[in-house]
Amino acid sequence: MLYFVNDYSEGVHEKILQHLIDTNMEQLAGYGMDHYCESAKEKIKKACGCEDAEVFLLTGGTQTNQIVIDTLLQPYEGVVAAQTGHVSTHEAGAIEFTGHKVLELPQKDGKICAADLQKLAERFYGDENHEHMVFPGMVYISHPTEYGTLYSRKELEELSAVCREYKMPLYLDGARLIYGIAAAETDVTLQDIAELCDVFYIGGTKAGALCGEAVVFTGDSMPKHFLTRVKQHGALLAKGRLVGVQFDALFTDELYKEIGRNAIETAAVLKKGLQEKGYRFLLESPTNQQFIILEDTRLEELRKDVQFSFWEKTDASHTAVRFATSWATRMEDVQKLLYLL
Amino acid sequence: MLYFVNDYSEGVHEKILQHLIDTNMEQLAGYGMDHYCESAKEKIKKACGCEDAEVFLLTGGTQTNQIVIDTLLQPYEGVVAAQTGHVSTHEAGAIEFTGHKVLELPQKDGKICAADLQKLAERFYGDENHEHMVFPGMVYISHPTEYGTLYSRKELEELSAVCREYKMPLYLDGARLIYGIAAAETDVTLQDIAELCDVFYIGGTKAGALCGEAVVFTGDSMPKHFLTRVKQHGALLAKGRLVGVQFDALFTDELYKEIGRNAIETAAVLKKGLQEKGYRFLLESPTNQQFIILEDTRLEELRKDVQFSFWEKTDASHTAVRFATSWATRMEDVQKLLYLL
Amino acid sequence: MLYFVNDYSEGVHEKILQHLIDTNMEQLAGYGMDHYCESAKEKIKKACGCEDAEVFLLTGGTQTNQIVIDTLLQPYEGVVAAQTGHVSTHEAGAIEFTGHKVLELPQKDGKICAADLQKLAERFYGDENHEHMVFPGMVYISHPTEYGTLYSRKELEELSAVCREYKMPLYLDGARLIYGIAAAETDVTLQDIAELCDVFYIGGTKAGALCGEAVVFTGDSMPKHFLTRVKQHGALLAKGRLVGVQFDALFTDELYKEIGRNAIETAAVLKKGLQEKGYRFLLESPTNQQFIILEDTRLEELRKDVQFSFWEKTDASHTAVRFATSWATRMEDVQKLLYLL
Amino acid sequence: MLYFVNDYSEGVHEKILQHLIDTNMEQLAGYGMDHYCESAKEKIKKACGCEDAEVFLLTGGTQTNQIVIDTLLQPYEGVVAAQTGHVSTHEAGAIEFTGHKVLELPQKDGKICAADLQKLAERFYGDENHEHMVFPGMVYISHPTEYGTLYSRKELEELSAVCREYKMPLYLDGARLIYGIAAAETDVTLQDIAELCDVFYIGGTKAGALCGEAVVFTGDSMPKHFLTRVKQHGALLAKGRLVGVQFDALFTDELYKEIGRNAIETAAVLKKGLQEKGYRFLLESPTNQQFIILEDTRLEELRKDVQFSFWEKTDASHTAVRFATSWATRMEDVQKLLYLL
Repeated sequence: MLYFVNDYSEGVHEKILQHLIDTNMEQLAGYGMDHYCESAKEKIKKACGCEDAEVFLLTGGTQTNQIVIDTLLQPYEGVVAAQTGHVSTHEAGAIEFTGHKVLELPQKDGKICAADLQKLAERFYGDENHEHMVFPGMVYISHPTEYGTLYSRKELEELSAVCREYKMPLYLDGARLIYGIAAAETDVTLQDIAELCDVFYIGGTKAGALCGEAVVFTGDSMPKHFLTRVKQHGALLAKGRLVGVQFDALFTDELYKEIGRNAIETAAVLKKGLQEKGYRFLLESPTNQQFIILEDTRLEELRKDVQFSFWEKTDASHTAVRFATSWATRMEDVQKLLYLL
Repeated sequence: MLYFVNDYSEGVHEKILQHLIDTNMEQLAGYGMDHYCESAKEKIKKACGCEDAEVFLLTGGTQTNQIVIDTLLQPYEGVVAAQTGHVSTHEAGAIEFTGHKVLELPQKDGKICAADLQKLAERFYGDENHEHMVFPGMVYISHPTEYGTLYSRKELEELSAVCREYKMPLYLDGARLIYGIAAAETDVTLQDIAELCDVFYIGGTKAGALCGEAVVFTGDSMPKHFLTRVKQHGALLAKGRLVGVQFDALFTDELYKEIGRNAIETAAVLKKGLQEKGYRFLLESPTNQQFIILEDTRLEELRKDVQFSFWEKTDASHTAVRFATSWATRMEDVQKLLYLL
Repeated sequence: MLYFVNDYSEGVHEKILQHLIDTNMEQLAGYGMDHYCESAKEKIKKACGCEDAEVFLLTGGTQTNQIVIDTLLQPYEGVVAAQTGHVSTHEAGAIEFTGHKVLELPQKDGKICAADLQKLAERFYGDENHEHMVFPGMVYISHPTEYGTLYSRKELEELSAVCREYKMPLYLDGARLIYGIAAAETDVTLQDIAELCDVFYIGGTKAGALCGEAVVFTGDSMPKHFLTRVKQHGALLAKGRLVGVQFDALFTDELYKEIGRNAIETAAVLKKGLQEKGYRFLLESPTNQQFIILEDTRLEELRKDVQFSFWEKTDASHTAVRFATSWATRMEDVQKLLYLL
Repeated sequence: MLYFVNDYSEGVHEKILQHLIDTNMEQLAGYGMDHYCESAKEKIKKACGCEDAEVFLLTGGTQTNQIVIDTLLQPYEGVVAAQTGHVSTHEAGAIEFTGHKVLELPQKDGKICAADLQKLAERFYGDENHEHMVFPGMVYISHPTEYGTLYSRKELEELSAVCREYKMPLYLDGARLIYGIAAAETDVTLQDIAELCDVFYIGGTKAGALCGEAVVFTGDSMPKHFLTRVKQHGALLAKGRLVGVQFDALFTDELYKEIGRNAIETAAVLKKGLQEKGYRFLLESPTNQQFIILEDTRLEELRKDVQFSFWEKTDASHTAVRFATSWATRMEDVQKLLYLL
């Protein structure tokens, strides 16, 4: 059986595992107060080119989205997101659970555009008659998006400009960020993101860690008493070292780039192979998630040998499916998959 | 420097670590749907002697308390707990965050008693005039308590009887449960707990795992669509294997008993040594947490060589402090500590 | 100055006021336990043709929507509503405040259709893979809608059928219900609504009362301990009589029909007049809210003599505006308005 | 049957009723934007001697407590209150519903003292180790208390001083405030309260209005976008005039003082009569609530002729009961009650 079902099927990258093994019996302070957390944060800030940022390590993606959004928003504010945004659709209402509305914008290939955001902000903040409505208080984007697509530097600049004009913090969900910055076609770097976003997170879970997401608050955007609020959300790990040691390894000798590269290279070979075989793509993705449209009969047959994700029905007899590569994908498995297809 | 500050200073027990290493590159389903989670659950149910229970693996203690309490209670109900209960004092309001009141009962050595619970239940459910008050909907106890003390089998039976009379589920916070069942003086087994409680959790974080708590719903007490509610709380790990593999190891060849034994044996030597040296105890604890009262000058001196926990001021010049042992405590360090004291 | 800005500009209908005056010095039990509340509930049940319903009196519309939806839904469920539904747009996030998502459906003239609802329900409940999404737990419609339009009996039947198939309670927001049932074109009666909906409310505030909405739970849909939950939401009036006496008057000698008739008759004259003068309507409304599209210059001029509601910009130089009639609208004021227009 | 069960058994004081009648057909703006609300606010500010305050009119007491506390607190903060405080005991968990813990202090005759508050604040804010606990963010007192007792000017000054030292806003629940300032024994005026508290409310419901509470934010303590948050809590009345007109009347020609006087004078006669007859008091109350301890057999007998409130069992055969007077109590009924007793 070949696995292309997602990018979190294996455990942890061997270099991260080794760091966990090496540091295992050290006696460390709890709740993220240890020196590995400290070291990880410093390395992340350096890689992002923003020494004055504040970094906080959390455990999972939905948890991170929930806490960042809930703590950045005022109670009367909601978060603007694409209709296809993860927070809009696949987090079981975790945002609403904390009392906030997700204000949906139309999307194209998983992305929102500055013009739509501008229109929404103008309509709301343009005059003074909206006290009975939810205030758009911040903006959520994912990069790569849920469809594997990427914002260009220019698109990010435009979104950031609208956000700053209306004082709505821009938050980037980077669950798969290291695959985004490793993409061949991208003109967006980690430093660009740190410059243009007010807060973002660098995903660990989908990037070769066992768990863990690193939230980067640029400028002075970190909410007051953030640690207490994390605790209040039930999200403060006693052994904070678990995430600290992993991010310390991920940002040592640019391991995160190495991990990103493998996913992108295997995805590129897969994409090229699929194109050559004439498969129809749901959309153009430059990252580790590739979406093609299969006949349903073909799909059933393929299931016998390969695990992949059902995405959506495109018509009565066709289905869009996703193949994902990762840090752990072996080129020989891609070749096998192409052979099967 | 000697470490007796808590029972989660080191990483993970070597046997658990080895299991993580051995299974690392297996490709597994996400969100706890893998066979290690399955195997861990089966072993736990067997160890608890209740094959019809349902087990769910979560990440941390406050998270577990928050989710179990929030999902078991109706919105108009609160949870009854000791004034010193972890949910009452040290979880940053995580219970109230989900809309529920903690209804406090007086405590003795960290424990509540059936008589007080009976009185509260009678007062509330005895007549029909309490619609303007919070309904006592379930009961929370910790075992061992925050003071290291243990309920006797008889005490548990009495609490359980009141709970069942008034249909208030009894929930036991077992963050340190494996130390409780390993205590020499206890007459309470894992099976007793499964029999007398409606839900409880077996702590992993403080018992040699990197993270993880196993919630056991006995009978049919598991709330509907529990997985969705865990997701909604931001607490569903993508790589559920991280906790599954660890609990699979903890419940293989009774590793949890071995871990408990080391903590209890080192604590017993420490306790005996402290008694012989004439130290005053805050209270009598049969488990891995020992509380003594020190003169403040003595305390400051000791800090140079030992890490331990400040507990509370007992008077103007004295302080209660805690020494904790664990699966990782070496007998030679206990000897060194006794020498220093 | 002429007032057509809304249907709650005046105080209270004279017959309701008289009842308040007549009963003022009676000493009555608090919290809705008095005999006027009882009498009002009985009369409402009779008018609805459902003697086994349960009626609860609340104070305002958003409050009613918030409480009914929050108490009917399970915590993991959201409410399905039109994109233009009041709960989606103009309640400042009151639904999300209680932890629930509003799941939006497309709308036409403010209405949703059974086909769209069926599609949503099928997609969600059709297979078992949606544990990471918000469950559609109930359906919200308004009748009349925010655009003054009405569902036909057939449309309601179809919606109700889908709701019952998928066990999603159908909730009808009747803030202006008495204007809906008074409309000349409608084939929907109060009894139809009681038969087809699981819960609905009959608005008082916009129907000649000072405040108050009567929630009707048909069948056995009333949530357990509802009074406590109303109290917990901060919505239980000490002097419940205030609402009880008003609804007692509203449902004595069919006063609610008389009130509805005046609003509909004045609106009909206004509508006919506007049609004759060639005004463009935003949509066809058979009730007390009429929407026309004005040139912006015309609009500014009109403001000097008439109060009406801005609705939305339709293009760069035109605006949709709303004229509302009510129980208190005098025919002579309609004539004056038509003269001005 | 004589009614001494509470102070909200009748409708509305005749002068307030007259004002409602006189203004009934005026066409006014909704949501509290009318000139009666404006006028009421101005008169209240003047009576309080703080022209720069902001006043907001709400509907009920629990609603007011919930909204004021929720909007003044940061999400990681709780409210300090007496164990007997209304928010602690009889609001069905309305405070916890919004995510905040009630941090209880011991009480004497329903009052907390500055020394206890100081101790709590010192313990929490004295050092930096409390990130896992709920921050004490504001202080709630009731005046008169739930037991009819009053703070002295000195006690209020001391509480206020601690609050200001630790930047915890002091909030006074004045559901029965007009009875407190009318008491013969008090040295606390409305102006004193405005000076010493950061926010308080003047109750209307228990003071002769049909409903309504006037929240006074002194200084600049009113939370941002308060109207939106009131709407979000489901508490914004469409016909805000209902409360505006009533408070306008209450503060015209000092009607609130006249109302207070009647309650206090009738209570004084009742108290003196009870003392003379040798009844045992639960505590000494200078306001309109009088608590005596009756033998249970005596109590049952009395129930045939008088309505009063059960308060609490004091021992196996005795019960504390409450008699309340109000603006509407007639002296002849007091005489009749004394005759019966």
